[in-house]
Amino acid sequence: VKKILENARTEVAVFLGAHADEIIFTSGATESNNLAILGILKNTSVILPHIVTTNIEHASVLELCKNLEKSGKAEISFVPVESNGIVDPRKIKKALKTNTVLVSVMYANNEIGTIQPIREIAKEIRHFNKNNNSQVLFHTDATQAVNYLSINVEKLGVDLLTLNAAKIYGPKSIGLLYIRRGVLLAPVYLGGDQEFGLRPGTENVASAVALAQSLQIVEKIKEKETKRLTVLRDYFIGEMGKTGTQIIINGDLENRLPNNINITVPNIPSDLLVIELSARGIMSSAKSACKSGDGKSSYVIKAINPHTKDTDGSIRFSLGRYTTRPDVVYTLKSLRDILLKLEKWYQPE
Amino acid sequence: VKKILENARTEVAVFLGAHADEIIFTSGATESNNLAILGILKNTSVILPHIVTTNIEHASVLELCKNLEKSGKAEISFVPVESNGIVDPRKIKKALKTNTVLVSVMYANNEIGTIQPIREIAKEIRHFNKNNNSQVLFHTDATQAVNYLSINVEKLGVDLLTLNAAKIYGPKSIGLLYIRRGVLLAPVYLGGDQEFGLRPGTENVASAVALAQSLQIVEKIKEKETKRLTVLRDYFIGEMGKTGTQIIINGDLENRLPNNINITVPNIPSDLLVIELSARGIMSSAKSACKSGDGKSSYVIKAINPHTKDTDGSIRFSLGRYTTRPDVVYTLKSLRDILLKLEKWYQPE
Repeated sequence: VKKILENARTEVAVFLGAHADEIIFTSGATESNNLAILGILKNTSVILPHIVTTNIEHASVLELCKNLEKSGKAEISFVPVESNGIVDPRKIKKALKTNTVLVSVMYANNEIGTIQPIREIAKEIRHFNKNNNSQVLFHTDATQAVNYLSINVEKLGVDLLTLNAAKIYGPKSIGLLYIRRGVLLAPVYLGGDQEFGLRPGTENVASAVALAQSLQIVEKIKEKETKRLTVLRDYFIGEMGKTGTQIIINGDLENRLPNNINITVPNIPSDLLVIELSARGIMSSAKSACKSGDGKSSYVIKAINPHTKDTDGSIRFSLGRYTTRPDVVYTLKSLRDILLKLEKWYQPE
Repeated sequence: VKKILENARTEVAVFLGAHADEIIFTSGATESNNLAILGILKNTSVILPHIVTTNIEHASVLELCKNLEKSGKAEISFVPVESNGIVDPRKIKKALKTNTVLVSVMYANNEIGTIQPIREIAKEIRHFNKNNNSQVLFHTDATQAVNYLSINVEKLGVDLLTLNAAKIYGPKSIGLLYIRRGVLLAPVYLGGDQEFGLRPGTENVASAVALAQSLQIVEKIKEKETKRLTVLRDYFIGEMGKTGTQIIINGDLENRLPNNINITVPNIPSDLLVIELSARGIMSSAKSACKSGDGKSSYVIKAINPHTKDTDGSIRFSLGRYTTRPDVVYTLKSLRDILLKLEKWYQPE
């Protein structure tokens, strides 16, 4: 069994361009993100460590950073992304200080699909480290990116990288954290010596193998799927412009995951749109699943458009391996019908 | 899916005599134990909180407590168990102080199977709390006990309880933490609002359902299995006395899980015994799987018998649902053969 586990670790490492001893398996992306940040903080000798991140990170980075700031355990710079949902690497560079220990910027956003300039940010950090004799580390959450983008850690220039199996058609409750050799992390939970002592608990070998296999399939079809979905996505977006209703596309159109469409329909509540679409068999989301049910509108949409009202409906459509052109055509037709029906009541005269 | 998850939560709660909102699903016992202890510490207003535990807890409690003591985040009393592997409730009581926030004592030990007097410890804590107007909480790790003992939290008198699916013939990477209503815990990892905000991350619904089903089966066959295995275990222990080789039975014979046999054979190394048994198709353990490979002998055995030398072999046999009397007979015969072979070289003249 140990051999099978170590084979899975080696397979995963190869896809990342990493060494097997740089991979630890976790229970998912939330744990990986928390472990990366808390693990670095627990190990640093900097008195008040400073972390740089953005204002549209996943909740597992954003909420943790807010909590660390509030409790005085770290100083945090939340660099705001531009209105296209992309962070300016120069603004990250500007935020770096002598007490900075870590930069955490997600590879692609889970709500609006915008792709962050990870290589450029890595370059800025390297320059800063060289000029200041610093050792700022760079973590990226690649959970959403892995289906379509390169995750070679050398090319990306990251020190820590988070992945999750459930987002690549694998099982739930298995993820990984890549930790570059030489990067010292302290474990948060203690106990057994599994996963190089960084993640105690009986190993879930079957799920680790499934994660490796899921990654293998992803790498095999990545190029083809990216092309296919880009065409579908752009068709979706293009056709939406013809509905007659005012629809805002959230996030950059170029630097964007091929499977993501996120729109705001002013004055029509998100929940209503989601329910109407659901009644027609179409699954859409008003915001992240992690933050559903708190009654507030998406913090990501608010970050890129501060004028968004709580009554403005934002919804996300995700395309995937099983999405076909007829699905998109049907969704467009349904959306048109729904908007035609709803705008009578909700749109201002 | 949400309904299915909540059904699983309710089912589990019924078996514990608890409310559904007192159950959170985790990735296993290690996480539950860490979350219980760290979560209480994060939430307390006591300046230097004090924790009482024993010296034979599972690594996820023991290592964490040692680390908390070392880093000055908590004061810890490691109450030594008696030579039979059972802790004296009066010694727990004696260890309680005005800054004590938590007592953590495992229900049954994972190596020697000794059952701790949880109800009596709970009573001592209640008395202390009443007399001192204190609010010391009581956590138990019931991972090993659940197959054979009652886990009704009211009857046990515990505030927090850990369970793990993998130890009850369920899947890996799913466990739970029972948290009594009114007990306030701060989450360690942050992110989504899942599991009442205490354990963020996409819920593993299938595994939660499997945990509930595993518990259901356990409850159904508990009484019968306990009787059956007690007979088998006592037969095993009785026959071992007839081998002629000096064999020490570790841990109390009465207050002991029906599936556990743990012996020390003076002067014969554990590893050798494990290998010889394995060659005959018999799986045994020299110590906890969490601590395998560190080259040291079991801390549990050392705790109950300080005179144990590193060259004294301790091994554990676990009986289970699929263990039959012929299995035990074959194991006894094999052990006899092995000891006969090895004692020529290893036993002192």
